[in-house]
This record gives sequence, structure tokens and C-alpha cells, in this order.
Amino acid sequence: MTEFELLAKILPKLPTNRHVALGAGSDCAVLEAETGRLLFKTDAVVEGVHFTIETAPEKIGRKAMARTLSDIAAMAGTPTVALVTLGLPPDFDPERALRIYDGLAAVAREHGVAIAGGETTKNPGGIFISVSMVGLAPANLISRAGARAKDALFVTGELGGSRQGRHLDFEPRLAEGRWLASNFDVHAMMDISDGLAGDLRHLLQAGGVGAELLSSAIPISRAARRQAQEESSAKPPLLAALTDGEDFELLFTVAGKDAVRLSDGWRAEFPKVKLSCIGRIVAEPGLRLRTADGVRDLNAQGYTHFAQS
Amino acid sequence: MTEFELLAKILPKLPTNRHVALGAGSDCAVLEAETGRLLFKTDAVVEGVHFTIETAPEKIGRKAMARTLSDIAAMAGTPTVALVTLGLPPDFDPERALRIYDGLAAVAREHGVAIAGGETTKNPGGIFISVSMVGLAPANLISRAGARAKDALFVTGELGGSRQGRHLDFEPRLAEGRWLASNFDVHAMMDISDGLAGDLRHLLQAGGVGAELLSSAIPISRAARRQAQEESSAKPPLLAALTDGEDFELLFTVAGKDAVRLSDGWRAEFPKVKLSCIGRIVAEPGLRLRTADGVRDLNAQGYTHFAQS
Repeated sequence: MTEFELLAKILPKLPTNRHVALGAGSDCAVLEAETGRLLFKTDAVVEGVHFTIETAPEKIGRKAMARTLSDIAAMAGTPTVALVTLGLPPDFDPERALRIYDGLAAVAREHGVAIAGGETTKNPGGIFISVSMVGLAPANLISRAGARAKDALFVTGELGGSRQGRHLDFEPRLAEGRWLASNFDVHAMMDISDGLAGDLRHLLQAGGVGAELLSSAIPISRAARRQAQEESSAKPPLLAALTDGEDFELLFTVAGKDAVRLSDGWRAEFPKVKLSCIGRIVAEPGLRLRTADGVRDLNAQGYTHFAQS
Repeated sequence: MTEFELLAKILPKLPTNRHVALGAGSDCAVLEAETGRLLFKTDAVVEGVHFTIETAPEKIGRKAMARTLSDIAAMAGTPTVALVTLGLPPDFDPERALRIYDGLAAVAREHGVAIAGGETTKNPGGIFISVSMVGLAPANLISRAGARAKDALFVTGELGGSRQGRHLDFEPRLAEGRWLASNFDVHAMMDISDGLAGDLRHLLQAGGVGAELLSSAIPISRAARRQAQEESSAKPPLLAALTDGEDFELLFTVAGKDAVRLSDGWRAEFPKVKLSCIGRIVAEPGLRLRTADGVRDLNAQGYTHFAQS
């Protein structure tokens, strides 16, 4: 099956929507004119780094699309149109490529996102998928840089142990991000992809502030607890929640005075998604952890794809 | 050097422009609101497929950016903002990554394109670069599908033998594409990336028409002639011009009555870029080549990355 034959099978099944004026089959996709600013993001998953050769093809596709959606969620945006770059080893079974696209298309469809084009190319070392996405920006942009002293620091969901399985089927927090931006003055927001400690450090540096985390408030996932019980070499659960990557949860700050109203509103709006106030922003730079034994500097490094070779 | 340290060196040097509201350092790039439709395209280059480990890093970056620009040119668009996904082997020298970015940034800057974000990730098999781009669409969209019987068929530049070197330093035909769309009723246009014969077939199928090429009018590059002389196993020059890939020239049709005015206008506007009328569109589907010996069907396959494993 040539690239053209493979695309001929894939393209008719891809989701579309009113944002696409001209989709696959031309040199570029054409997007309908929109009022307001657009978001633009690309994110990649790679065999041997973000999944293994044993991972079900639909799950590989699902993860590739959901990761990029998570970045749109972190800006409280509405994703509209995606393009897919699929690098495949020379001897790759075209049926598996179709199944990867099934996974890509399924999660795109769930969120109303069109896939307006696909490119396949060879990648001798394994599967490489880059998903490029455009979305509508909210009226008020939320950046990473707006955290202020005395802000309350929140995180959605539970953290750590994502590699046990959740990294393949997490739900991008799109509705949650938009609800937050529509109903509250969110000062700073990002999604956690490289571990809470590492990503929070970026948010603090961008805002020129520090944070104090409350150790007992960190939402540790069941997977992080289980892996600590089952593997003697595994990280303690709290460390896993602080430093494991691929949580794809939202991390954000609001003024301390808004914290209770936000917690109450969240429980009514998203009863199935946990929300935790994990600490507060302070003026002094740095990241500290308050435990039963006192406050100590948090030196744990965030998970870094590039460094772990 | 971690991913973060590498990006910290790369990001401050990237070109920006008025289309970027928020660039690198946030979860998504934010694009300023534009009036009118946007183009959206992604294209990838891969080590061992589109370049070798010996290729100078700046040239690898240049090619990656220029390929995507060529697709924007084929739609007569104006490129505005790019994102770069850079997959690197685990032991990759960060200095070489910086040089790849130098190449990416140089050609982006030449064409006024901002690079609003970069992602690096591991790719165990070699370098993998995907460039994602947004651009402004022209007032009147030009698709591949508009060719009509009696149209004159034109191609820019010279064809064949691109792998001798031109595939690394071709000029995307952006000014040419826009000039054509602004001054003529271009019926169909595309860029030639997989060889004239193969890509023209796509244009013909999209329009439900056929074409007759005039063998003596095909602009054969010096490289295609030289490789035929120097390598006994090389394709004859005409076949190379018809089927070699990576020309990145524009292929387009206009009504036959516009052909002379177009040729004259082109020579005045782009005296250094060759333009050839290589044949005409006919109602009967299929691709035929008129030679001194008569007309014969052209069965030569276009170059297909995916099939040539």
C-alpha cells in the first residue's frame, strides 16, 4: 500500500466541521474566517518514549490527539481543526496505521475537532505522530505568567503513576478549562505534562513568584500508591505525584478570596472530577513543601523527556 | 543539556512578527485575529528519507521550513506563523540542534514568518522535523481541482535531479504564487513534490480531466542531464524530469487565451525564474506525452515516499 492508497482509505473517515473550508486533498487545509484570536499548538508522541510497540494502535492515536487537546485546554480554548503527521517504519502494517487513525479520529470527534489533513512519511526508527492544532482563544487570555502572591493553587484530578495506563486514556480537561476561564479570574494556568514539581516551577518562574505546597493536600493517584506497594524500586507515592510525568491535569491559580466559591462551583459542575487546593503562591521565589515535620525546599526535578535518554 | 535548556537557547533567537500575540513559553501560541480565511499545513522531513546524517544541520532546517512554505505558495498564500517539532536521537549533540534551528529561522525570516514555538522530543531512529504553518489565504482560493479542457499547463523552474543538491536549497515560490493569483484567473495550482507525472495525475483526477504534455517543452534541469551522463544506471533526463521528486516548483493551469499574456508578464516580473508551458489540459482523462514519434500514454509513476521502502 502506497502513501496515496493509505491516505485514500483514511481521509474519507476523518471528522470535519464548519471551521474547515477545504480539507484533505489540497496543498493546505483552508480554515473559515473566525473572529478573535486563535490558538496554535503542535505536540508529538514517539514509539519507545511515549508508548511501546505493544501499545494498541487506537490508544497510540488517542494519546497523540489528547495530548494536543490538553494544551488547548490549558489556555481555556476551543479546539477546532487538527492536522496529523504520521511517521511509520518502512515495513509497517497499513492496517495498524488505519487503527492509529481510528484512535485519532475518535477523540477528535468527541471534542468536535476536524482532522483536515494527514501526511504519512517513513520514520526508520519507529512510529512518530505529531498532531498540529488550531483552536479559538478565550476572550481573556490566560497565560502561565499571571500567578500572584496569596493566590490559591489548584490542581484537577489525581497525580502520579500515569505510566500504569492513564497516560493512554486520560481525558483532556477542555470543558473544565473553559468553565474556569468563563466563571473566575484565573491568574495563571497550564497543563501538567512533565510532573507537578517541574511544571509548577515553570509557572512560578514565569510569574516571578514562589509557592508553598501542602503535602497532605497533593492528590495522589491510586496507581501511584499501587506501584509503590508492588515494586520495591518504585518512588514513594508522594514523590510520584510530584514528579511522574504525563498527568495532563490542569494546574491553575486564583486569588485566595475566590478559592471557596471556586471549590463549591466545581463540585456542582464537575462532580466526577476531583479538584484540590494544593497550596498557595508566595512572593519569595522557590518551591517549598509543608509536611507534618515542617517546611522544606522541594528539589525534586520535573520529568524531562530530553534528559532521560 | 535538557530539553528546557536547549529550548532556552533556541527560543530567544526565533523570528517573530505582528501575527503572534503570544509566542513560545505558553501552552499554545496565540495568533492575532485576522480577517479572512487561513491556510493550515504541516510537513515533515526525516533522516534517511529526506536527508542523510552527513547533511549540514542548517540545510536540514532550511529544507524542513522551505517544504512547508512551498505548500503555502501552491495556494497563493502568505505564510505568517510556524511551529517546529524536532525529534532527535538520544545522544544528539545540542550544538547540531541549534544549527538546525539556525536553518529553520533563516528561511522563516527571509519570508517574514514567525516561529512561535518549538518542541523537542526524542526520536530513537534519527532526526525527524515536522513544521506546522498557518498563513493568510488569498481572496480567491485556488485548489487543485479547477483545471478545464483547453487550459494551458505551466511549470516554474526546471525539473529532475533535485537529489543532487537542489532539494536542500530550493526557493519556495511564494512571490510567484501570489503574483499569479493576483494577476490571472489561475484554474488549478499545486507544488511538485513527488515528481511531475505523479503530481500532475492528482491534479487531473481532482479536475476530472486529462493532459497532453509536449516532451520538448519539459524543462529538464542541468542536474538531471548531468546525472544521466555520469551514472550509467541513472534515469534518462526526460524521465528524471517527469518522475524525480522534490522539485518544489509550481504546476498550474490557466485558460489557453491567457497563456501568452502570462508568459510575457512573468518574464518581466521574474526574469530569473524559468516558466514553461509544458502542454494542455484535455477533456479525456489520462496523461499523454507528445514526442517526435507521436503521442503515447505516460505510465511513469510519480515518486512516492511511502512505497519506496
